[in-house]
Amino acid sequence: MPLAAVMTAPNQPVEVQQLPDPILEKGGIILETLYSEVCGTDVHLLHGRLEGVPYPIIPGHFSVGRVVETGGAVSDVNGKLIQPGAIATFLDVHETCYNCWYCLVAKASTRCPQRKVYGVTYSAKDGLLGGWSELIYLKPGVKVLTLPEEVSPKQFIAGGCALPTALHAIDRAQIQIGDVVVVQGCGPVGLSAAILALLSGAGKVIVIDKFESRLVVAKSFGVDETLAIKADDPRQHIERVLELTNGHGADVTIEATGIPIAVKEGLNMTRNGGRYVIVGHYTNTGEILINPHLEINLKHIDIRGTWGIDFSHFYRMIELLKRHSDSSKNIAWSSIISRSYTLKEINQALADVEQGSVLKAVIQPNLS
Amino acid sequence: MPLAAVMTAPNQPVEVQQLPDPILEKGGIILETLYSEVCGTDVHLLHGRLEGVPYPIIPGHFSVGRVVETGGAVSDVNGKLIQPGAIATFLDVHETCYNCWYCLVAKASTRCPQRKVYGVTYSAKDGLLGGWSELIYLKPGVKVLTLPEEVSPKQFIAGGCALPTALHAIDRAQIQIGDVVVVQGCGPVGLSAAILALLSGAGKVIVIDKFESRLVVAKSFGVDETLAIKADDPRQHIERVLELTNGHGADVTIEATGIPIAVKEGLNMTRNGGRYVIVGHYTNTGEILINPHLEINLKHIDIRGTWGIDFSHFYRMIELLKRHSDSSKNIAWSSIISRSYTLKEINQALADVEQGSVLKAVIQPNLS
Amino acid sequence: MPLAAVMTAPNQPVEVQQLPDPILEKGGIILETLYSEVCGTDVHLLHGRLEGVPYPIIPGHFSVGRVVETGGAVSDVNGKLIQPGAIATFLDVHETCYNCWYCLVAKASTRCPQRKVYGVTYSAKDGLLGGWSELIYLKPGVKVLTLPEEVSPKQFIAGGCALPTALHAIDRAQIQIGDVVVVQGCGPVGLSAAILALLSGAGKVIVIDKFESRLVVAKSFGVDETLAIKADDPRQHIERVLELTNGHGADVTIEATGIPIAVKEGLNMTRNGGRYVIVGHYTNTGEILINPHLEINLKHIDIRGTWGIDFSHFYRMIELLKRHSDSSKNIAWSSIISRSYTLKEINQALADVEQGSVLKAVIQPNLS
Amino acid sequence: MPLAAVMTAPNQPVEVQQLPDPILEKGGIILETLYSEVCGTDVHLLHGRLEGVPYPIIPGHFSVGRVVETGGAVSDVNGKLIQPGAIATFLDVHETCYNCWYCLVAKASTRCPQRKVYGVTYSAKDGLLGGWSELIYLKPGVKVLTLPEEVSPKQFIAGGCALPTALHAIDRAQIQIGDVVVVQGCGPVGLSAAILALLSGAGKVIVIDKFESRLVVAKSFGVDETLAIKADDPRQHIERVLELTNGHGADVTIEATGIPIAVKEGLNMTRNGGRYVIVGHYTNTGEILINPHLEINLKHIDIRGTWGIDFSHFYRMIELLKRHSDSSKNIAWSSIISRSYTLKEINQALADVEQGSVLKAVIQPNLS
Repeated sequence: MPLAAVMTAPNQPVEVQQLPDPILEKGGIILETLYSEVCGTDVHLLHGRLEGVPYPIIPGHFSVGRVVETGGAVSDVNGKLIQPGAIATFLDVHETCYNCWYCLVAKASTRCPQRKVYGVTYSAKDGLLGGWSELIYLKPGVKVLTLPEEVSPKQFIAGGCALPTALHAIDRAQIQIGDVVVVQGCGPVGLSAAILALLSGAGKVIVIDKFESRLVVAKSFGVDETLAIKADDPRQHIERVLELTNGHGADVTIEATGIPIAVKEGLNMTRNGGRYVIVGHYTNTGEILINPHLEINLKHIDIRGTWGIDFSHFYRMIELLKRHSDSSKNIAWSSIISRSYTLKEINQALADVEQGSVLKAVIQPNLS
Repeated sequence: MPLAAVMTAPNQPVEVQQLPDPILEKGGIILETLYSEVCGTDVHLLHGRLEGVPYPIIPGHFSVGRVVETGGAVSDVNGKLIQPGAIATFLDVHETCYNCWYCLVAKASTRCPQRKVYGVTYSAKDGLLGGWSELIYLKPGVKVLTLPEEVSPKQFIAGGCALPTALHAIDRAQIQIGDVVVVQGCGPVGLSAAILALLSGAGKVIVIDKFESRLVVAKSFGVDETLAIKADDPRQHIERVLELTNGHGADVTIEATGIPIAVKEGLNMTRNGGRYVIVGHYTNTGEILINPHLEINLKHIDIRGTWGIDFSHFYRMIELLKRHSDSSKNIAWSSIISRSYTLKEINQALADVEQGSVLKAVIQPNLS
Repeated sequence: MPLAAVMTAPNQPVEVQQLPDPILEKGGIILETLYSEVCGTDVHLLHGRLEGVPYPIIPGHFSVGRVVETGGAVSDVNGKLIQPGAIATFLDVHETCYNCWYCLVAKASTRCPQRKVYGVTYSAKDGLLGGWSELIYLKPGVKVLTLPEEVSPKQFIAGGCALPTALHAIDRAQIQIGDVVVVQGCGPVGLSAAILALLSGAGKVIVIDKFESRLVVAKSFGVDETLAIKADDPRQHIERVLELTNGHGADVTIEATGIPIAVKEGLNMTRNGGRYVIVGHYTNTGEILINPHLEINLKHIDIRGTWGIDFSHFYRMIELLKRHSDSSKNIAWSSIISRSYTLKEINQALADVEQGSVLKAVIQPNLS
Repeated sequence: MPLAAVMTAPNQPVEVQQLPDPILEKGGIILETLYSEVCGTDVHLLHGRLEGVPYPIIPGHFSVGRVVETGGAVSDVNGKLIQPGAIATFLDVHETCYNCWYCLVAKASTRCPQRKVYGVTYSAKDGLLGGWSELIYLKPGVKVLTLPEEVSPKQFIAGGCALPTALHAIDRAQIQIGDVVVVQGCGPVGLSAAILALLSGAGKVIVIDKFESRLVVAKSFGVDETLAIKADDPRQHIERVLELTNGHGADVTIEATGIPIAVKEGLNMTRNGGRYVIVGHYTNTGEILINPHLEINLKHIDIRGTWGIDFSHFYRMIELLKRHSDSSKNIAWSSIISRSYTLKEINQALADVEQGSVLKAVIQPNLS
């Protein structure tokens, strides 16, 4: 009987529990978890900030593991048969229906009402449907990819859920060669967005955060400028962006903070006719005063919300890790990971992520 | 010596003054004014709400007149020689430089710092550079079009500055056949946007305003639904939009109110993955609380500011009036005009526009 | 035992045969056919021009009928329960997988290799899976819509498969208000594209065909100009388009002919920087000489192929028919239908469509 | 009196002539030429393949030099005063009018009929208006940029006219992170496009040419695959592209050959729903048979012609050279240059470019 870390209710310590073994259906897969992660959403889950969550739950939406057993012949999207022993990962978002108005007419499949999400919308009573567990059960129809040999499980989890989310934001940003890109927030999504902006041919990438320790990591990935927010001079970073852009502001600004005031600041750092992509607001953290004349209409600006990911972002994420993991084009993805935690250390991991003392926390459920 | 209505300073009554005759330069044109208009911007000018306005000024940015004299041979953009007696109009925005970073690199020519605007950025001391005057002087380089015979001067001014502004907003909205379009505000810009949404193949056009009298006019142009804002039930119109759209909200919402709260309401009336176009905020009327999670990111929405017009909108406006003025495809543009005023009646016109008791006020400077 | 018209092999007369009653599965539906149609694809099928067709087949991909029986509770995409007696239609394209690289990564679902098409890719031995039959069997998972009461079955079939195909082409064309649109070919797709261009706010719609009889119909729908191709002066229509556009050519040209030379002509009728949409080439009719310098690069032109339709085009087609069938906004869809045929008359119908002597042929399988 | 290389008539050897000193007007600039180049267009000029060329001409459209004298105070687009001694370059395309239908309404300024091009549309009798000359005269209004100190004149000319042309093509290609990009042709434009595709985050860049020597250079810039066209197996490279893309073809293919057959091949190497950008056809080299069904419509493909450059491409080219010339992000632009030639050696340079024995030939008019 596998061990799993269970969030029993909001604002309660996570407990390690022994849960029943999964029952393998035709088309299903049992994974032995190698890595899962703690992301900002997990902190929101801990504090009960998401609606409709069926506590108790096993959190952990992005994970990678070793295939223990498959329910008959199961293939990945590329038509490759998934074998026991293979290293596999899967899209946490599940049951997007491709049969409703959102999916088929509005073409907004990340807003499909049928979606289920591993680690978020399943109860621990439904089975091992989250990554903070020694085993994960992949239900029939879950979209699985086996990792190419160039991509280690650690590199995959270093990308984690932040990388495809940032990829979606970068698609929305439509960066042209030479664009100046500002990224607000240097958590996993912001850092990933900054790396992807560099890869997209940005002419300059500027990253803003309040933690110097995070900015040091961003610098190590080659971003051009890092700006620390000063509590005693809260406009300094805004003015610095204008200085760095001949007074115009950035062509593209990407918000990855989840803090409402960042939206107001970001609009003021973006040039007339520029693009402002919001990707950090995954939970309700309140309102902010916006001036529609000065901050939107007069600037002739585009603002683009970015909700969730679809399979293409997940698929392309792995292709990207594969391309940029060989020796000649190396990106040191693993250096994004600040620390690994066992199941027993998860409450510490959550606290560290919440305080920002780690940039990225990964979970290794089979270590003790 | 021609008469002109001069706004001498903010919050002072407009005065009719006799001003010197224009001095005709090579490439310049003298127009005898047939119609000008009073738009919302003129009310802002009256109250000193725009920055850098060189009072005293002659307001009136969109106008149409009869050519009195040209400074040598002057041609319009189609290469047609402009003859005395011709009915001509011109783009109020002048001196866009096509030589600066905004014009050439950022491709945001409506934000060119060199722009001058008839009726707004010229002092009355600079000459007859506004439409509230018996004569208007078109400086060399002003972009002039002669009206095709299908378009009467009255039809042109019924479109006025609102029609190309709405055309720009509609371009930004990228309406697809069948889209549900909500227009917030039924002043000249909102009404024009509603008419253009109908022409663009919208599946349903819903117009919202607080004045029933304006909604009646919208209805006469064939919009599908009109919703009056109820002071005693301020969410009723929002809920009604949701009802009319299976609970989804509109595919496209166009803001044409200039009122900050409309932005918040508009976001809540737009569907996930929809487009929200802001075109009504031409002056600073304050801030509004926006929730970046609920109103932008979770909705995966696009917000698009729309500043000013360029020559293409002006040119296409006249083509549009030409097409839709013949008997078989008639749009009753002239019915947009609520009332005509002489120069002496301009203070009344400004008061009427400000109170919203007229939908559109036109000026006939050569009537008395 | 229902009668059906069966195409037994290429280039053989279609035979009316008695076939076994359908076996209703859970989620399946039996329809009594009211209307089906003969389209250009059926002529291609008759001559064996499509690959991989499992003759014998029952042709007829777009159809409408009355629900006889459902296999348990079956709902349409709007969640509405489908009742016996309801008038229903369905998307002929079936089994798009939303699970492969084409569907999920390339986002080209109309190229999904799993697609099946009623009336084309099913054998008559597989059941009543084509519209030229008294009964049609809708397999579980077929996407069904019940017709709103504003849309009669005859209006629906007047639109037929051509209308959503044209809608897809119009989406690809990105018509802006005022654009001059040329449509090459006035068969059902071309005529539908012309009607939709008018609905999209085109400034001028010009339709070209070799049959005057078809152009007369186009004229009745309000297109601005019709140009007949003259065998003795094959450049006349091209020159006429240039004349009608100040020598520039059209902003948008839509090819709906299936004839290779039309592509060359169409490029020459389109302006520099314009869009050329190809939607008529649904089967291989050979090659044409194109000059990449003169006809593509120098013109800075966009050429856009348009393959198939997805559910959104089908859904929006019905919304469109609903909107434009009431008395105030009437479009006389039914006048597109040249003639109705019984099952026994199908060989005549095929001959008439092939010769172009009818614009649109519909089938009424339950008439005799 | 400066020396210049003059092309007196088509198919005649270029002659070095002594020409009158330029007469400096207000706003004009005299440059001492440091580098000019020989590009494919110059070979077309030599053979009289462009229409309306006013022989005798001084070819050389992209050049860089040292400012000798300015006609009063002249500023560049950034507002920086241009001083004698500064290293400056300029956009060869001149007199785009921003006053005509093409510039203002069609927004196709690279098709403005007023355009003049240094080295192409000016006669040697009009002055020193081409780069194959010891001095170049920049007429008032020519758009000038001074080189930032990070960009050497040699690096600038290594980019030459090919780099902004490729930048325009890459903008048209809308590369997303991870896209597979094929570039047909490894001349200066093709090689530049390949470098820019790498910079844009392409997942794989494949370059095709018939000269192994050029492919070696491409390889040195980091492209993933190079494919040589085999005279004895002319489909091999097409099949290899399909192999490298799971049989799908490239997401994006960029044509930079000027050879009609490449267009047919390129369409066959591009995936369903992909983009095919044509940028190599700058002169008429004949026609090619295209199958509209198989190669366009069935593939649901976009084809995009790319004519000329505007100032934004030129401006961004210099920003790009600045960014990628520092030690940490170095791109070895100078290695694109195969050989330098003096004015006297120009006939040799033309022959070398025509035969493809050099990838890029630059001219140093002040060397002897």
